[in-house]
Amino acid sequence: MSKNTDELFKSVIAHAKEYGFVFPSSEIYDGLSAVYDYGQYGAELKNNIKTYWWKAMVQLNENIVGIDSAIFMHPKIWKASGHVDGFSDPMIDNKDSKKRYRADQLIEDKIAAYDNEGKTDQAEALQLALDEAQKADDLARLRELIIENNIVCPISGTANWTEVRQFNLMFSTQMGAVADDADVIYLRPETAQGIFVNYLNVQKSGRMKIPFGIAQIGKAFRNEVIARQFIIRMREFEQMEMQFFVRPGTQREWFDKWKETRLKWHLALGTAPEKYRYHEHTKLAHYADAAYDIEFEFPFGFKEVEGIHSRTNFDLSQHQEYSGKKMQYFDPEIDPDTNKPYGNYIPYVIETSIGLDRMFLLTLINAFEEEDLSTEEKQDSRTVLRLHPCLAPVKAAIFPLTKKDGLPEKAREIMDKLKVDFNLQYEEKDAIGKRYRRQDAIGTPFCITVDHQTLEDNTVTIRHRDTMAQERVPADSLDKIIGDLVSWRNVLR
Amino acid sequence: MSKNTDELFKSVIAHAKEYGFVFPSSEIYDGLSAVYDYGQYGAELKNNIKTYWWKAMVQLNENIVGIDSAIFMHPKIWKASGHVDGFSDPMIDNKDSKKRYRADQLIEDKIAAYDNEGKTDQAEALQLALDEAQKADDLARLRELIIENNIVCPISGTANWTEVRQFNLMFSTQMGAVADDADVIYLRPETAQGIFVNYLNVQKSGRMKIPFGIAQIGKAFRNEVIARQFIIRMREFEQMEMQFFVRPGTQREWFDKWKETRLKWHLALGTAPEKYRYHEHTKLAHYADAAYDIEFEFPFGFKEVEGIHSRTNFDLSQHQEYSGKKMQYFDPEIDPDTNKPYGNYIPYVIETSIGLDRMFLLTLINAFEEEDLSTEEKQDSRTVLRLHPCLAPVKAAIFPLTKKDGLPEKAREIMDKLKVDFNLQYEEKDAIGKRYRRQDAIGTPFCITVDHQTLEDNTVTIRHRDTMAQERVPADSLDKIIGDLVSWRNVLR
Repeated sequence: MSKNTDELFKSVIAHAKEYGFVFPSSEIYDGLSAVYDYGQYGAELKNNIKTYWWKAMVQLNENIVGIDSAIFMHPKIWKASGHVDGFSDPMIDNKDSKKRYRADQLIEDKIAAYDNEGKTDQAEALQLALDEAQKADDLARLRELIIENNIVCPISGTANWTEVRQFNLMFSTQMGAVADDADVIYLRPETAQGIFVNYLNVQKSGRMKIPFGIAQIGKAFRNEVIARQFIIRMREFEQMEMQFFVRPGTQREWFDKWKETRLKWHLALGTAPEKYRYHEHTKLAHYADAAYDIEFEFPFGFKEVEGIHSRTNFDLSQHQEYSGKKMQYFDPEIDPDTNKPYGNYIPYVIETSIGLDRMFLLTLINAFEEEDLSTEEKQDSRTVLRLHPCLAPVKAAIFPLTKKDGLPEKAREIMDKLKVDFNLQYEEKDAIGKRYRRQDAIGTPFCITVDHQTLEDNTVTIRHRDTMAQERVPADSLDKIIGDLVSWRNVLR
Repeated sequence: MSKNTDELFKSVIAHAKEYGFVFPSSEIYDGLSAVYDYGQYGAELKNNIKTYWWKAMVQLNENIVGIDSAIFMHPKIWKASGHVDGFSDPMIDNKDSKKRYRADQLIEDKIAAYDNEGKTDQAEALQLALDEAQKADDLARLRELIIENNIVCPISGTANWTEVRQFNLMFSTQMGAVADDADVIYLRPETAQGIFVNYLNVQKSGRMKIPFGIAQIGKAFRNEVIARQFIIRMREFEQMEMQFFVRPGTQREWFDKWKETRLKWHLALGTAPEKYRYHEHTKLAHYADAAYDIEFEFPFGFKEVEGIHSRTNFDLSQHQEYSGKKMQYFDPEIDPDTNKPYGNYIPYVIETSIGLDRMFLLTLINAFEEEDLSTEEKQDSRTVLRLHPCLAPVKAAIFPLTKKDGLPEKAREIMDKLKVDFNLQYEEKDAIGKRYRRQDAIGTPFCITVDHQTLEDNTVTIRHRDTMAQERVPADSLDKIIGDLVSWRNVLR
């Protein structure tokens, strides 16, 4: 029952919709491009991923605190951060079709076409030229490459191109109703700046000492020209970011530590280590002195899930310059070289930044299995989400074997005792086997069946999702059995 | 030490900033009007309020599920909902100062001025005229009232006014980079529509049977002309909304049930019942057939915290009309009057809608106390947040009595055992009394002190925030003592 990776990805997307994990946004209005909604199980799974991150970063680290800053921020912040001037894609318009394209992607598509046609030399040469043009931010050169390689508009079929221009990826809106005072503001393209501009407030009110971190989970927005691959690249997405403030000169040591710590966080969920790899950035962003991605092997190849960036003191220095407020920290610790306190400095920053939606998709894909259960007598299969119990949307389902003889009442009585502590589901419709399959499809680790014997000796059967094994246990032990399996202690060290 | 309510409110705002609960957004850039950031304790408190709501609504009700829909939605949705045409304030410009004002608020300010001057008759007459003009949506009449009452611009001092025009409160932005295809879209002004447009997807994929509910927590945005009173009216805010779908004809019964259920949710936190009251809407929104607010007594008077609205089938009917998709539900239950199934209908909806930021402010204000601890010998006081332990940002603080003799190591050893389950804080600086005060100020219910006796018999002292009483308990019992006090079972019934 193995599928090729393209089919596997399509199956996951279909499953996500059919079972209430992810719906295309505004679907009854034929959707909104590159925007998705999380359904009833998706919202629970996403919340559980957030909780796992928050507990690992904030709750378990004495020197990391979490904040929740607004999406709307002062427009000067994006000037200081470099986003107003630099956060853009190179766009080109075809004058005949009036369609707009990303110039670099037109060239990349051509490289792929050369490859498909077996023209490997031309593909390599063009790739090299593209890399050089991008490194030099040379927009005119991008246009030359398009012309030289006879790249035409897929709609008009012509090469009647405009110049290449930069198109900013930030969404803007107008705030305030006062006629002469309405400000253009941006929807934040990253949550990190909300941390930087609050660094002094948090440091002072929380009496934080370096090294310390500030973490945050929240929405960010980018007007992607071509958004693709389901929830991998969305125009509205969610980030889980942590900025760790350190003494200048110690940044490499902390960078290495966070690089390792973050990969361990991913692996603690039981994902096969070979699914992950590091990718070192060779072309660094203007603010960075080191950067690694943690990549996961999606069906369409390895893709970034999380970035670990050594951002130097770039952002804080910029905010000091643009706001006129001192961003310095006074470090009272004694420098052994000088026997004096380290004193005032602008801290360096290590950032860990994970895309929550990508983490969600990774989790879903990694858990998804179409399992062949055929025997010699009959063909059979099931679709099962092998989610880590800590992340499973529903922790246990409770079934009365039949709808009569007081079994529903007994099942509900058991459920009432457990439901404050665990997200449970009650189901009495259809045969038990069918109910098992429905719970497998949403990743519920346990199914608990209440039968006639339960009325006699207060025992129930527990059926385990992964092994499909069943065992008989006292109803009073369910609290502990479920509690142990879904405990955060299993993944937090 | 009693203060007037204005001073009390100012003290709460100052405390919220000083102790890391709420910061003005973009403060180092002199702030962004009517936008706030939640600091390290504010974020935890807000998360705990969300958890309390989510557990009460979603986890404890078999027939309610939670979703997480995007802020960006198809623009037609806001046409269907009535927001494009109707979600606006009446604005007037002064031609000399070029300043813009809300016409109704200019008039209200004048009424207040008449009152202050003892011109009660004129105040009453103007109030009556204003009410009539608003009821009739008569913009020309609003302008007449401004002219007739000699209302002048506070800046220019002139009555050189434009016409009154409607100003839409939705923020808009442009999505998509394709030259001829960039769409104007809106930032959602309420989360409810994200539920309505997903109602069919959730009902089908979740096999939901009427009556059932869909809940959601998320950001919404309104370009308020005059946003005031701290986090009471913000341009970016967060809602916790639930739409409950019912059979037509049963809406009043469900409305009454939810009205009661929601007030109980508030009261379960231990807030004095006299702080709450119902307020019945007399002028109903175009979509409603009944509406009550749950109001809380803030220092500046009773204000809405939550709305319970019987929204009829207005929204679903509108979406059926605008999208062309059937919004019907097939109800298989037998109608006793006809002995046939109820069959196809568009469900009626009861909405419960609570402002998370207002709930946060209510919680903070209600918990805030400047307590006089003076004795005959000396003056003393403390500021304490008497937060419900379930909502407290930090559940317990752990202090070694001194920084030596192995006490810090022992304290950390105790902390390590508890920190996966509870958000804890470790502090070793300053005298114990000072550390108690700092924890009182952020509402930590327990302080645990490790002293020399702990090294001998493994007991610690627990100091209770509210009573300041101390008791000696075995360190191994902390798990249970803290667990019992912060258990959600204390507030969820």
